[in-house]
Amino acid sequence: MKPNSVVNEIIKAEYRIRKYIYETPLEYSPYLSLLTGAEVFLKLENLQLTGSFKIRGAFNKLLSLEEDDCQKVPITSSTGNHALAFAHVMQKLGKSGIIILPKTTSKVKIEALSPYNINLEYFGEDCLEAEIHARNVATKINSSYISPYNDLQIIAGQGTIGIELEKQSEKLDMKVDAVFIPVGGGGLISGIASYLKMNFPQIEIVACQPKNSPVMYASLAASQIIEIESQPTISDGTAGGIEPNAITFDICKQVIDQFFLVEEDEIKQALKLLLEKHQWLVEGAAGLSLASLIKQAQHYKGKNVVLVLCGRRLGLNQLKELLQ
Amino acid sequence: MKPNSVVNEIIKAEYRIRKYIYETPLEYSPYLSLLTGAEVFLKLENLQLTGSFKIRGAFNKLLSLEEDDCQKVPITSSTGNHALAFAHVMQKLGKSGIIILPKTTSKVKIEALSPYNINLEYFGEDCLEAEIHARNVATKINSSYISPYNDLQIIAGQGTIGIELEKQSEKLDMKVDAVFIPVGGGGLISGIASYLKMNFPQIEIVACQPKNSPVMYASLAASQIIEIESQPTISDGTAGGIEPNAITFDICKQVIDQFFLVEEDEIKQALKLLLEKHQWLVEGAAGLSLASLIKQAQHYKGKNVVLVLCGRRLGLNQLKELLQ
Repeated sequence: MKPNSVVNEIIKAEYRIRKYIYETPLEYSPYLSLLTGAEVFLKLENLQLTGSFKIRGAFNKLLSLEEDDCQKVPITSSTGNHALAFAHVMQKLGKSGIIILPKTTSKVKIEALSPYNINLEYFGEDCLEAEIHARNVATKINSSYISPYNDLQIIAGQGTIGIELEKQSEKLDMKVDAVFIPVGGGGLISGIASYLKMNFPQIEIVACQPKNSPVMYASLAASQIIEIESQPTISDGTAGGIEPNAITFDICKQVIDQFFLVEEDEIKQALKLLLEKHQWLVEGAAGLSLASLIKQAQHYKGKNVVLVLCGRRLGLNQLKELLQ
Repeated sequence: MKPNSVVNEIIKAEYRIRKYIYETPLEYSPYLSLLTGAEVFLKLENLQLTGSFKIRGAFNKLLSLEEDDCQKVPITSSTGNHALAFAHVMQKLGKSGIIILPKTTSKVKIEALSPYNINLEYFGEDCLEAEIHARNVATKINSSYISPYNDLQIIAGQGTIGIELEKQSEKLDMKVDAVFIPVGGGGLISGIASYLKMNFPQIEIVACQPKNSPVMYASLAASQIIEIESQPTISDGTAGGIEPNAITFDICKQVIDQFFLVEEDEIKQALKLLLEKHQWLVEGAAGLSLASLIKQAQHYKGKNVVLVLCGRRLGLNQLKELLQ
């Protein structure tokens, strides 16, 4: 898939979802600029409704199904930000949907979904088993499976961040040189980078992953989606495998200019800085962009750099670990 | 001072500062609504630029001095949110100013101010000594002392939150029944409540303080500003005494309908809920409004309640204490 086909969908998504989501701030960081020598701007998707950028894609996908007068019941499988976004959108639309959770899902994550009018079903021992089951159920009962990233409308929703960056950098009279974006399945970077590359080809798109779970990095290096074993990472939102034939892989191949991997200690250090210097408590994945910039700071001196902070869902145990 | 004189200044403040500050979200909380039986909306001033509502008053005061072509160097004394707001505004205006800090100020708080082009001076062993010194210096060198709360323009800046609440509740098609507001010196509640009381007299204004430092509460009860000894509180942003003749006292007398005091454990419980259920890490003072609602929930069943979360500056040690 070509980035320009994605851009058409991003523009439609912008009209579709704008009134439902926040335009999150693009905020200059005096402290991080002093620390790195770059001019650092934070794109605060950690302040987005339901806690992450995922609400953009969820609104876009589910509203587009409504427009198509699709009568299928939407079904998804996720224990994290995508699940919460899905539940919020279904509630807003006054519709019912299904989330399949692994039986091992923690009480805290279930409670986060409990205020919503959504059907929670439990299957399997881990996320992958639950996801496969959700896809099977979707086929069997003729419902719509909503992937967290492998879907053009999901990607287009996330891409509306690109439109905001264009508008906000103009307002600040600032020419963006590089955008650092956390990568898991690749939905976020596919959306943002498709939009920016089409409109500002000179902007460097920097992908960031944890060394402990670098599936997109390894897949791009191998020129095909591969399975590799992941080690535990505090960036759990980006961890795990990529579906075979995921459309994000092809887009990532075209739009990513630079790819950095970071160690767990580097991610934690970045999270601590955001907490201590900006009082932002963010999730592990949101530490990837700052960790990558700090590691590669010598290449970005004097440049206008945007760090995407993708979400804020850090568990209390992860937080305690961070503070030790 | 009558609330309607304050409202005139709030409307001017709105025009003066709007382009410099964020309109912070008014966000419905499914979880807290389920918990308390009220319909709970959070006014997220914890997301405001520089981390708290203080930036509103600081912009309004310092811009109004600019308009008056005042050539005096602004001087203030604060180690917290007001200091950061002051530093940010001075930087934005390309002007220089002075902050007097007690010699005992922690390294973390000094570092937070270090990226700004501001003169830091050190005097005395605590905040009160530094503040008295700042006022003396202001008189001696003919500079403008900028109080964190005892100033009509500061109050008017904070009052722009009232304008946002009006607009946002209309957009949500929601009639506000009560607004819970943390109180220290009374600048925040004087601003918000003056605006709301003039325009929506039926809205109940609920003041919230920690039992360990209830100076405004005790002063209102005594019908005069009194000094009482404060115990330590996690709500350090609202702790401490009120200046003799503070204009906020007179306004508070007229606009506050209900006053609740909360225990340290209740504040901490509220902070934990905000952290665990909404992933908002907020400062102690921001826990006051939720703690008060939880304590008095039986009186607010089915009512539309706004909780003002005033800021997010929680120290790492306070956070560790909270998680224990």
